[in-house]
Amino acid sequence: MGIVQKYGGSSVATMEKIKAVAACVAARRKEGQDMVVVASAMGKTTNALIALAKETGGADNARELDALMATGEQTTVSLLAMALEGMGVPAVSLTGGQCGFLTNDNHSRAKIVDIKDDVLKAHIAQGKVVVVAGFQGIDARGDITTLGRGGSDTTAVALAAKLGWDCEIYTDVESIFTVDPRKCPGAKRLHRITYDEMMEMASLGAGVLETRCVEIAKKYGVRLYLGKSLETDKRKGTYIMENNETFESMPITGISLKENCAMLTITGAPGDGRCVDDVFALVAELDVNVDMISQQILSDGGIALSFSCSLEDAALLERNCAERTLPYTLNVQQPLGKISLVGVGMITHSGIASRAFSVLYQNNIRYYQITTSEISISITVDAESLEKAADLLARAFDLCQGD
Amino acid sequence: MGIVQKYGGSSVATMEKIKAVAACVAARRKEGQDMVVVASAMGKTTNALIALAKETGGADNARELDALMATGEQTTVSLLAMALEGMGVPAVSLTGGQCGFLTNDNHSRAKIVDIKDDVLKAHIAQGKVVVVAGFQGIDARGDITTLGRGGSDTTAVALAAKLGWDCEIYTDVESIFTVDPRKCPGAKRLHRITYDEMMEMASLGAGVLETRCVEIAKKYGVRLYLGKSLETDKRKGTYIMENNETFESMPITGISLKENCAMLTITGAPGDGRCVDDVFALVAELDVNVDMISQQILSDGGIALSFSCSLEDAALLERNCAERTLPYTLNVQQPLGKISLVGVGMITHSGIASRAFSVLYQNNIRYYQITTSEISISITVDAESLEKAADLLARAFDLCQGD
Repeated sequence: MGIVQKYGGSSVATMEKIKAVAACVAARRKEGQDMVVVASAMGKTTNALIALAKETGGADNARELDALMATGEQTTVSLLAMALEGMGVPAVSLTGGQCGFLTNDNHSRAKIVDIKDDVLKAHIAQGKVVVVAGFQGIDARGDITTLGRGGSDTTAVALAAKLGWDCEIYTDVESIFTVDPRKCPGAKRLHRITYDEMMEMASLGAGVLETRCVEIAKKYGVRLYLGKSLETDKRKGTYIMENNETFESMPITGISLKENCAMLTITGAPGDGRCVDDVFALVAELDVNVDMISQQILSDGGIALSFSCSLEDAALLERNCAERTLPYTLNVQQPLGKISLVGVGMITHSGIASRAFSVLYQNNIRYYQITTSEISISITVDAESLEKAADLLARAFDLCQGD
Repeated sequence: MGIVQKYGGSSVATMEKIKAVAACVAARRKEGQDMVVVASAMGKTTNALIALAKETGGADNARELDALMATGEQTTVSLLAMALEGMGVPAVSLTGGQCGFLTNDNHSRAKIVDIKDDVLKAHIAQGKVVVVAGFQGIDARGDITTLGRGGSDTTAVALAAKLGWDCEIYTDVESIFTVDPRKCPGAKRLHRITYDEMMEMASLGAGVLETRCVEIAKKYGVRLYLGKSLETDKRKGTYIMENNETFESMPITGISLKENCAMLTITGAPGDGRCVDDVFALVAELDVNVDMISQQILSDGGIALSFSCSLEDAALLERNCAERTLPYTLNVQQPLGKISLVGVGMITHSGIASRAFSVLYQNNIRYYQITTSEISISITVDAESLEKAADLLARAFDLCQGD
């Protein structure tokens, strides 16, 4: 049993930070732990490479862009391996391809097809710390691919799954909080959260871990830990794992917030569904990312359909609809913010929704669209009310310090 | 029949230069020529990476250093491929490993074992300009290796040999000159030179092309052209090829110079050879790079042995000899410079050596050690006389403009 650790770009942004990470890894290794370390590109390297690529005039070539991007992580891992060796810890760096990450050829957002782990396991068997370039792999042709957003987290979790090890993700935030502490200063540190809650939090805008990597962790039962780089006190970070009894007392685990939303509502459409078809054909054509969708059949048999998207996408849709003759009315409500209450406990605790609405109502906060899932309730409010609403709900659901 | 072009670090030092190179390649490609382009790391990238590696404290790990270095060329080739694509020229970049360069595992100075060219040829067959990262390959384990000094030139020549194509090496010098123009401003441009002459010039200190790459070119009959980056007028550069009749009229093709030499002379040693053994055992132990070696048996049966090396190595040897009781006397003559007259015509032209000595004698230039090969004569002179001697000899052997 060993540990896969992942260090993000800000944790390895300078040579000093790389050496500090190496010292942490070395200390852990000396406790006898087998270790694989996944690293991202140093600091702003990826952005700098993208800027260079744009200067070429050919940056839309995804294959070449991936080959370029991959150098960022390759640089970090060889430096980190050297730093470990310099501290007397046997180490070896591997690119994604060398580590056996086979992906499809969907450049810039490739999916992992398989991990051929014979090279990796041979190095581990030799007692080496294996330092793996995150975010990258190769396709069946041997072309370099990258995994897209959150790619290095995915690399780490996939390796942990393959090896049957635990996975520790180190980043520049201390832990997962009940609410984003920049929005709600009283937010509490979460010491534990379930995979499902984390996925709801991630996809609903908490922005710490990508849904995709939590999904893999859940599928393969990888115990995830998220903490601040160089912080060795495990009580300060968050464990992400399967649901268990200890959670039952808390109906809501956290609240995630999303800004810059718009709600589009269609009224006056006949109830035969053709209009919904039309609208979503247009949405697909314009590549608009739709978030919440809700629909009711009105008493006159007509349809009331609402969906939310970003402000930019709403503007794009409005421009396109203005040029067409529509058999319905499109209203845009903006700017809005979305609040999502997340918790596996919600399933067994009734009355969460009504309590939430009551809190908002009693504080004169207007709310618009509402959608629900098994473990979440999402509500849009006016953008200016977002933080106040979050704070009120956090206090109501026992998510603040000292409550 | 196509062309392999190689662009050195200074030719691709900035994004502007990369685009200028891409424009050159695009123009040539549009003439219908199949093309492979080998590129080095941008400008001072390699030095910057070495500096970073040194900061880690583990830069003596040659495997990791190679993995780090390789990112330099990988960055250039993806940017160059994007720049070509941006100009509407289908292009694809390959790392050394992707291009099939299999080497031994002698990190930082690996030798090419084979080139598996199926990927390369498939891309060429699709009409693409293939942009290959110079200086690198992979060993049998899949570890990244680098080829050491002049590695990108070697990559280019090896590819030309494999494909049966011509090879053009673009650098920041205009051509090969009869003498280094920084030392002898009157030096003439050489439009042609033989492989053998070029190898003598390279190993004797002309410093434009590494011996190794000329050796491969000779072995596989690759026609080499050396010219200044972005200069399209082929009359301005130098062709390097097999000897042919046109050279016969010129006994000396060029003069190469080497500074900072020392000559060590051993006298008073018995003639049984034990002393020579002793000295060269020490030389090997101290890893001293020995250049010229000459020996005579004196009339008393004793040995007079001289050899030359760098000033640093001479100091190292002196320090070590001072600590020992030697059965012979070691004299060091320094600082010296070495002049080498090179020319395949020398074989059929008698009297070259005596003419050279006569020029030096008549101008009161003292000379010390002399060594000869089939196509070269090397002479050491006092460092202060080096440039004057080169100029006099260049004029004597018709190597200056307007002679």
